[in-house]
Amino acid sequence: MTIATKQNWFTEVFGNEGTSFGLEITEKLHEEQTRYQFLEIYQTKTFGKLMVLDGCVMLTERDNFLYHEMMTHPALFTHPDPKKVAIVGGGDCGTLREVLKHPSIEKCTQIDIDERVTWASQTWFPQLCDANDDPRAELLFDDGIAWIKNCEPGSLDVIIIDSTDPVGPAEGLFAVDFYRDCLKALKMEGILVQQSESPLLHTDTIIKKIHQDMRSAGFNQCQTLPFPQPVYPTGWWSCTMASPVGSVSIFRDKEAANKGFTTDYYNLEIHRAALAMPEFMKRSLTS
Amino acid sequence: MTIATKQNWFTEVFGNEGTSFGLEITEKLHEEQTRYQFLEIYQTKTFGKLMVLDGCVMLTERDNFLYHEMMTHPALFTHPDPKKVAIVGGGDCGTLREVLKHPSIEKCTQIDIDERVTWASQTWFPQLCDANDDPRAELLFDDGIAWIKNCEPGSLDVIIIDSTDPVGPAEGLFAVDFYRDCLKALKMEGILVQQSESPLLHTDTIIKKIHQDMRSAGFNQCQTLPFPQPVYPTGWWSCTMASPVGSVSIFRDKEAANKGFTTDYYNLEIHRAALAMPEFMKRSLTS
Repeated sequence: MTIATKQNWFTEVFGNEGTSFGLEITEKLHEEQTRYQFLEIYQTKTFGKLMVLDGCVMLTERDNFLYHEMMTHPALFTHPDPKKVAIVGGGDCGTLREVLKHPSIEKCTQIDIDERVTWASQTWFPQLCDANDDPRAELLFDDGIAWIKNCEPGSLDVIIIDSTDPVGPAEGLFAVDFYRDCLKALKMEGILVQQSESPLLHTDTIIKKIHQDMRSAGFNQCQTLPFPQPVYPTGWWSCTMASPVGSVSIFRDKEAANKGFTTDYYNLEIHRAALAMPEFMKRSLTS
Repeated sequence: MTIATKQNWFTEVFGNEGTSFGLEITEKLHEEQTRYQFLEIYQTKTFGKLMVLDGCVMLTERDNFLYHEMMTHPALFTHPDPKKVAIVGGGDCGTLREVLKHPSIEKCTQIDIDERVTWASQTWFPQLCDANDDPRAELLFDDGIAWIKNCEPGSLDVIIIDSTDPVGPAEGLFAVDFYRDCLKALKMEGILVQQSESPLLHTDTIIKKIHQDMRSAGFNQCQTLPFPQPVYPTGWWSCTMASPVGSVSIFRDKEAANKGFTTDYYNLEIHRAALAMPEFMKRSLTS
């Protein structure tokens, strides 16, 4: 639900959570009903441009680096030698850009159902689309669930589920059947990573269920990594990483320390830090 | 500035930052103009009770554990043997409660200028005041700046500056003269810790200035520890720790691992994690 507090504010109300978050805006740059969702682009006063889907803040220029870096680099440095990556969702291309910073990558396929999101990102967030013309990038506009289901077994090193919340179109991305298809599509040492909502709000519900479903699907290890994300509910977000065989808390630390590309949040120490579990999450997720 | 989005919402607008945060409320429990500030207490729908000072969210029942634990335990486990602690501000008594969980503490003096804040906390947040009757607790209602200035030199192990933002009454708590008085009041191995605002919003401004001022005042080492705090701007907050002599990144890790008291966020791994600097903060604070 969106309410206008004043004419020049975009305010998202998280009805079930009893909280709201607002950004001061100077201009509405675009709106359209795509085939799948209602898409809006705003110029904010202090957070750069803002993308909104169905009334939910997706990203701003100022703080998207936190989410995109944390959805990508921990998973890629956990895999011993990632070459083939699939991004389910991620139509703004920010995750794709981070993935292609890794020189080992041979191919990264992004499967987002809504071509208009990518068009909007190319138009208003061109810095996120830096890598779209990289020959290793493949942009598909299709149903990610079906694509993963039909994917050649054992053909992927890393799957990144960069989706909206687990309601509506993205609901099927938070389900044991989908995780089973991911497991089949991954090679033996593959890594799955999914955005997994707010530690404060969702540890006992969504995050706990993701862990249970990933284990039910055959993933042996899973770990939730919290990180700050100011424009999402509570400003505190997470991704959950899973592996069919090994530990997801051991990673290529020497290579992370000498990554050879620029980031704004991620580094070796931040990767280690994100593996730390707050007491209340430990109690919830190990009980 | 506070604006009513709907009758049953409390919304704080961070005007300079171009953001707002709101909580759904079911009842206003109290309001008064104290000698120093306008104090309001609300019942929220999902975050328990809420305390507001001069229109700024101070704390809620649901998420204050993050702030209070991180203002306390890293500093106390960094000091080799903390016995005497002063809390400047902290009138809600949540920090005092965390300090007194440490059995080594012989005396903890809380100096808050506004007795009505403590009265309100005792009335509506009694769980934060658990330790107020502890014989080691001393509650003073006085000017913390003057108290520190007049403090016996070398008499304190840890000073915790648990204040409001560096505007208005708390401005003098973010100043090199005050840090100099803190240094004088501390013993050789003393630790100073101060709440230091939002990493995303304030690294290049307030946080950088705190580092500079602490060093100018004679502190040898300082380190900013980020942590989540959903009800403060961006949901991402920090404290900055300083020492006149030693490192503030080495702490009593074995004792933190076996702390013998209950926390909801802090633990050994979280302490280590909070010492990790995001790339953009490293660039800003080491340049």
